[in-house]
Amino acid sequence: MADTQDRNTQSSTAQTVISIDAMGGDSGVAAVIGGMAKSARKNPNIRFIVHGDDVQIKKLLKRKPDLAARTEIRATEQVVAMDDKPSAALRRGKKSSMWATIDTVGQGDARVAVSCGNTGALMAMSMVRLRKAPGVDRPAIAILWPSANPSGYNIMLDVGADIKANAQDLLKYAIMGASYARNGMGLKRPRVGLLNVGTEEFKGRPELHEAAKLIAAVADVSDLEFIGNVEGSDIPSDRVDIIITDGFTGNVALKTGEGTARHVSKLLKRAFSHSPLSRIGALFAMTSLRRLSKQIDPRRVNGGVFLGLNGTVIKSHGSADATGVAAAIKLAFQLAQNDFAEKLTARVASGLAASKDALSNKDEASE
Amino acid sequence: MADTQDRNTQSSTAQTVISIDAMGGDSGVAAVIGGMAKSARKNPNIRFIVHGDDVQIKKLLKRKPDLAARTEIRATEQVVAMDDKPSAALRRGKKSSMWATIDTVGQGDARVAVSCGNTGALMAMSMVRLRKAPGVDRPAIAILWPSANPSGYNIMLDVGADIKANAQDLLKYAIMGASYARNGMGLKRPRVGLLNVGTEEFKGRPELHEAAKLIAAVADVSDLEFIGNVEGSDIPSDRVDIIITDGFTGNVALKTGEGTARHVSKLLKRAFSHSPLSRIGALFAMTSLRRLSKQIDPRRVNGGVFLGLNGTVIKSHGSADATGVAAAIKLAFQLAQNDFAEKLTARVASGLAASKDALSNKDEASE
Repeated sequence: MADTQDRNTQSSTAQTVISIDAMGGDSGVAAVIGGMAKSARKNPNIRFIVHGDDVQIKKLLKRKPDLAARTEIRATEQVVAMDDKPSAALRRGKKSSMWATIDTVGQGDARVAVSCGNTGALMAMSMVRLRKAPGVDRPAIAILWPSANPSGYNIMLDVGADIKANAQDLLKYAIMGASYARNGMGLKRPRVGLLNVGTEEFKGRPELHEAAKLIAAVADVSDLEFIGNVEGSDIPSDRVDIIITDGFTGNVALKTGEGTARHVSKLLKRAFSHSPLSRIGALFAMTSLRRLSKQIDPRRVNGGVFLGLNGTVIKSHGSADATGVAAAIKLAFQLAQNDFAEKLTARVASGLAASKDALSNKDEASE
Repeated sequence: MADTQDRNTQSSTAQTVISIDAMGGDSGVAAVIGGMAKSARKNPNIRFIVHGDDVQIKKLLKRKPDLAARTEIRATEQVVAMDDKPSAALRRGKKSSMWATIDTVGQGDARVAVSCGNTGALMAMSMVRLRKAPGVDRPAIAILWPSANPSGYNIMLDVGADIKANAQDLLKYAIMGASYARNGMGLKRPRVGLLNVGTEEFKGRPELHEAAKLIAAVADVSDLEFIGNVEGSDIPSDRVDIIITDGFTGNVALKTGEGTARHVSKLLKRAFSHSPLSRIGALFAMTSLRRLSKQIDPRRVNGGVFLGLNGTVIKSHGSADATGVAAAIKLAFQLAQNDFAEKLTARVASGLAASKDALSNKDEASE
């Protein structure tokens, strides 16, 4: 076993291996292999272990000799379906491509796992195979949200790993989110906001009041700036980098944002095909409109990251095409290069220690 | 006191009086009087009782003799500020324009109250002065959401009257929302969906599972169609008319939708000013773009309605201009014409009776 020092040196020079689930996405195996091919073309330091139906995979790799040379196929028989309950997938799915994808990270053969499959099943299997990181009770799913910030994105978590979160969970989401922002987006001291129904301190549920105190207490040691409560309208804004919430609220917000963006895009298309004049206008503005549609395209921001496990797992959109899968792989590579899983665990430990110190300092005058 | 029959006859022939709070909005008294003037021009059957600083109001009404002739001014001294806590507003605000606006409905001098002020204070005062309607434990705020439906809007509630809602509350939101859809939008048998993190029955919190059973049991007697769980992405869709949720989730979803629409609009403007060609395109497409911006303009859908009180109160956006205030007044007039408050109370009673019958039929074989 290499120690952390060794691993750091290794990761910056050697090839990085990504474990990929070829099955279970709405767009089929071709989209996954297509995404791998895109990534392989752009990045010479990436290798793959791909899991699934080897007949299909071999057929698709035949015309991609460059990708095939950097890909190991591990055949699996079962597929976790999109509508499988997580509990059923766990009971029956140990021979599935999804389990094998995670298992490969657990064994140390790959640094990061990527799957387009059923989110609930992927989280359940990840919890069982990789186990929760020390100090974490509820792992979380973090996503990138198109925003007015220079990077173009904000981070939000949890968006659906668990439907509940208490104050301690929200504290850890803040620490984990900040670590992700540093390693995935290069932000040194990310601004963290707590999603609430108003910016005033007295607003919202009791666990949010408590979480606000806890996060404020660890801000320095966790290298984050706590800006207090934020509202739904702040999620795409440039006054915050990371939005912290429970998985129920986060999931509703995420899907509401996607639905709204889709609705506006539909209205926009209709506006531009409404009259001959507007159709001429669309022709003139085509380049600008294409850039806009890229900016709000959910496929570009593809890749929810599971935080709080012993290993990194990336959930790609179920309906991701090759572009979406490639975006998820790019993120996987970046996190692997930065030894993200190890750094996150260290951050949670130091944050919790600081939080306990702050609490005991408050309770009693310490010597 | 007129009985219901009398009142029905009256409302369709006589003038409808709306009680309006001139103070407390971000855009000042001028926006409120401007909105009243717009409404008065379009609607000969509307009269106003307006509450606030009579010097300012008289000055603004001077150049609007037609509106002045249909407006009674009731001077008040205090104003509830946007950042007043609801409890403080209640304790100290009995001489405020907001209290007087609601009181006028409580006394029967006007059918509906409209205010642009502090939502929390308005709800707290409405609860104290008008009291909860029989059978309602938690009143709710319902808003209109731009959607792909023929009317252009869906209804969502609660968006922030209370941060909690149990299964019984959610049931009543469904009944009240359906009554609002019938009287405010003319939908005979509106489709009701329960906001959740997935469409499968087993998803989400326990109170949602219970609420789903309760709503399904009253669907027939409440003249609604229950379509089960919906997700955030369904809020602007045409597969549902009414979205039911607790006030915390609803408030976050509402503000997330507004924030996303605003972000996309900003990107759109930038896209059209990016190059000389795109600026020419914008010129050609101007009419279509204006129509689009109307469709996604929050001022047009202005007007959250407080449901579950003995009387109808409409909360207009704090930042509403004259167009926004006029939209809220239009809705107020329509609901007053339909004797909405009385119909809603009757609907809650019949729905609760049906719900109890269904439960007792399930528990024991009834004779």
